[in-house]
Amino acid sequence: MIERLCIVGVGLIGGSVALAARRRGLCRSVVGIDANAENLREALALGVIDESAGDDIALGARGADWIVVATPVGAYPATFAELRPSWTDGLVCTDVGSTKRSAVAAATQVFGEMPANFVPGHPIAGAERSGVAAASPDLYRDRKVILTPTPQTAGDALDRTRDFWTALGAHVSLMDAGHHDEVFAATSHLPHVVAYALMRLLGSKDEREEIFQYAGAGFRDFTRIASSNPEMWRDICLLNRDKIVPLLIALGEEMEHAANLMDDGSDESAAALFRYFSEAREARQRFLARSLSTSP
Amino acid sequence: MIERLCIVGVGLIGGSVALAARRRGLCRSVVGIDANAENLREALALGVIDESAGDDIALGARGADWIVVATPVGAYPATFAELRPSWTDGLVCTDVGSTKRSAVAAATQVFGEMPANFVPGHPIAGAERSGVAAASPDLYRDRKVILTPTPQTAGDALDRTRDFWTALGAHVSLMDAGHHDEVFAATSHLPHVVAYALMRLLGSKDEREEIFQYAGAGFRDFTRIASSNPEMWRDICLLNRDKIVPLLIALGEEMEHAANLMDDGSDESAAALFRYFSEAREARQRFLARSLSTSP
Repeated sequence: MIERLCIVGVGLIGGSVALAARRRGLCRSVVGIDANAENLREALALGVIDESAGDDIALGARGADWIVVATPVGAYPATFAELRPSWTDGLVCTDVGSTKRSAVAAATQVFGEMPANFVPGHPIAGAERSGVAAASPDLYRDRKVILTPTPQTAGDALDRTRDFWTALGAHVSLMDAGHHDEVFAATSHLPHVVAYALMRLLGSKDEREEIFQYAGAGFRDFTRIASSNPEMWRDICLLNRDKIVPLLIALGEEMEHAANLMDDGSDESAAALFRYFSEAREARQRFLARSLSTSP
Repeated sequence: MIERLCIVGVGLIGGSVALAARRRGLCRSVVGIDANAENLREALALGVIDESAGDDIALGARGADWIVVATPVGAYPATFAELRPSWTDGLVCTDVGSTKRSAVAAATQVFGEMPANFVPGHPIAGAERSGVAAASPDLYRDRKVILTPTPQTAGDALDRTRDFWTALGAHVSLMDAGHHDEVFAATSHLPHVVAYALMRLLGSKDEREEIFQYAGAGFRDFTRIASSNPEMWRDICLLNRDKIVPLLIALGEEMEHAANLMDDGSDESAAALFRYFSEAREARQRFLARSLSTSP
């Protein structure tokens, strides 16, 4: 049983951890820390947290035996620096950030070495919504959570973190932080940047031609992730740029190849365009077959 | 009342027109034509059509007073050539293709001039599914249908076509064919090509690294349109390439701009990346506000 669960950043993700842990009886009390006072008032009113420490991380973490870091990943160096005075060997700390090498780097920089009781994590859930009002005790049920322990990570802390996420209903996998950042650059970060780029391009076109009123359900789904939090995604893109930028370049080349096949005008190019789209469709069917989810 | 409704191409879109027209009592009988004999057997078995004319368009259209062309847009020249022997001034013909200048061009090429009783149309519905088994009498309810009449189009044929789609539950708008092709190049064709390009790129990456198993709901939504029919989309891209290719190039530049902001490393570039994502998000919120749909 966790005595004092400390949530740093009480938005959708952090708030859902708190709600899920309370619902499942994993903790006696929850203290919340957030830079946004209004957000904390809402979290208290909604019963997501028992106690608010305002924006004082050191105060909130004092006496905590479990810490969940759920701030934007760009704030990790400052967050760990403020956690340090309250840090004890007895606590376990995990996080929910979308880039994992940067989480390891921030903790290592502040503590001089990677703390044995910090277990970096990444739940694959709900990133395009935001705010504590959207928090749900079921957000992690049947979702994947990736943990990226380092050679310095204590086995006990890893086991307890795995048990924690499993108790919230998640399926836990272990992965190297670098491999995590490579995989999610492809399946998450790249699509987000492309969705933002498309909406930025079409947004200025819409101002002239009002194109959005005729857009259908396919467009709505394709662009859903462009409603994601810009601060969170700025941080992710800056911290994982060495993986994301090459993929942006490769996708640009893939698009240019399609454009060339369209412009060529020959029967061979038409046939190649059909194969191109067919291969892409087969890849999507393969994804669907591998995905836990049943919705197409 | 339509006596003999002829559906050329009995897939999801054509089959749903047939089901919807029957359900609403708009026609006495439906004859279906399709290159795929198995598809026609299924359409008969499901009660989508009363009669099959196999792949014989001239036979199926004989005596028809209403024709709906629902073949891939690349087949229009051949389709209109086969319709010609059975064509009368008394019938009304509409289509459901995603490119409208090419529909006008195909009819004009076959008939020597644009027939007064052909009213080009485009229902904005269901394009990423396919097959008559997915057909539904409610597919067009509360969906938009764009009609692109030309100066040659008879007012009576236009009125009747508008009433037909309205009776199927759709909201009808009129638009110039060129403007239609420009608008849908942006909000439909471009996203489809990008989704295909992404899935092709990541499909080969998945073969080496099994990245798909960790992809979440955002990825599933973003790539849904990559499950669309490759033949249909080859045709659309080839027939509307003059509108699509410049958008592919512009989007590539927009992506390159984002990559440059990520790579730059300065505070100014980080701030610019935040503004970039914020502008994109605002554009998506504007789309949501303008969209009929209530789902985010």
